[in-house]
Amino acid sequence: MEFQLDKTLKADSLLMGHFKLSYLLLMNDSNYPWFTLVPRRPEMTEIYQLCEEDQKLLWQESKILSRVIMDYFSGEKLNIAAIGNIVSQLHMHHVVRFKHDVSWPKPIWGQLPMSRYADDNARSIMSAISERLELEGFCTLD
Amino acid sequence: MEFQLDKTLKADSLLMGHFKLSYLLLMNDSNYPWFTLVPRRPEMTEIYQLCEEDQKLLWQESKILSRVIMDYFSGEKLNIAAIGNIVSQLHMHHVVRFKHDVSWPKPIWGQLPMSRYADDNARSIMSAISERLELEGFCTLD
Repeated sequence: MEFQLDKTLKADSLLMGHFKLSYLLLMNDSNYPWFTLVPRRPEMTEIYQLCEEDQKLLWQESKILSRVIMDYFSGEKLNIAAIGNIVSQLHMHHVVRFKHDVSWPKPIWGQLPMSRYADDNARSIMSAISERLELEGFCTLD
Repeated sequence: MEFQLDKTLKADSLLMGHFKLSYLLLMNDSNYPWFTLVPRRPEMTEIYQLCEEDQKLLWQESKILSRVIMDYFSGEKLNIAAIGNIVSQLHMHHVVRFKHDVSWPKPIWGQLPMSRYADDNARSIMSAISERLELEGFCTLD
């Protein structure tokens, strides 16, 4: 079976490109710098269901992404989560948090409606983050 | 500096024992089977701050724990998260979820007050889970 990105994830995000394993999405919510890794393996809902090699890749990709986004946004806290109660396709959130953000100190899920980016703002974030990630094996979408 | 378990985590949980890297806590909330890994390294707030070897251990311990608790409780979904907006000491939640649980499909954080276990119930869970984890290098607290 071929991997297909879940429709809800697709509708709520901008696809930036991919690491060896995972797609990288910028979630279309300007309330927070919010990125999601989606391992490109069909039928996966839990991290521990991935084969050993894929789990290693996922954590490697998570680590690289974490460092780059915390550094770029000068984040105060990073929230990482694999929840999937609504969208079951395995995906891992990475949300840069600030003590002045609209939902602090609560986790962001279920707090506020998504606030879509102005196109230019999204493009500028995607371009800056992609450039940094490309040094670490990330492939930007053409 | 020596590692000391954060006071809030300690007050809200029962310490089960430790893997090579992390303490394992049963959170004292009978609303959900909820376990937390706390890497025994001082001054850590983010996963990517751990050295490479410790990150590998953490993900290994997370994988072992995930499998055992999902199997034991016949969970419908696992929620894994490192948030830390309130308690900054690095800790990783593992929450077994069911479509009939009190907060489904929302993430559990900030939903309901913790509902403490009756002693016997907590002991019985801790003993069953520890027994399974001991086959995988986990050391139960004396």
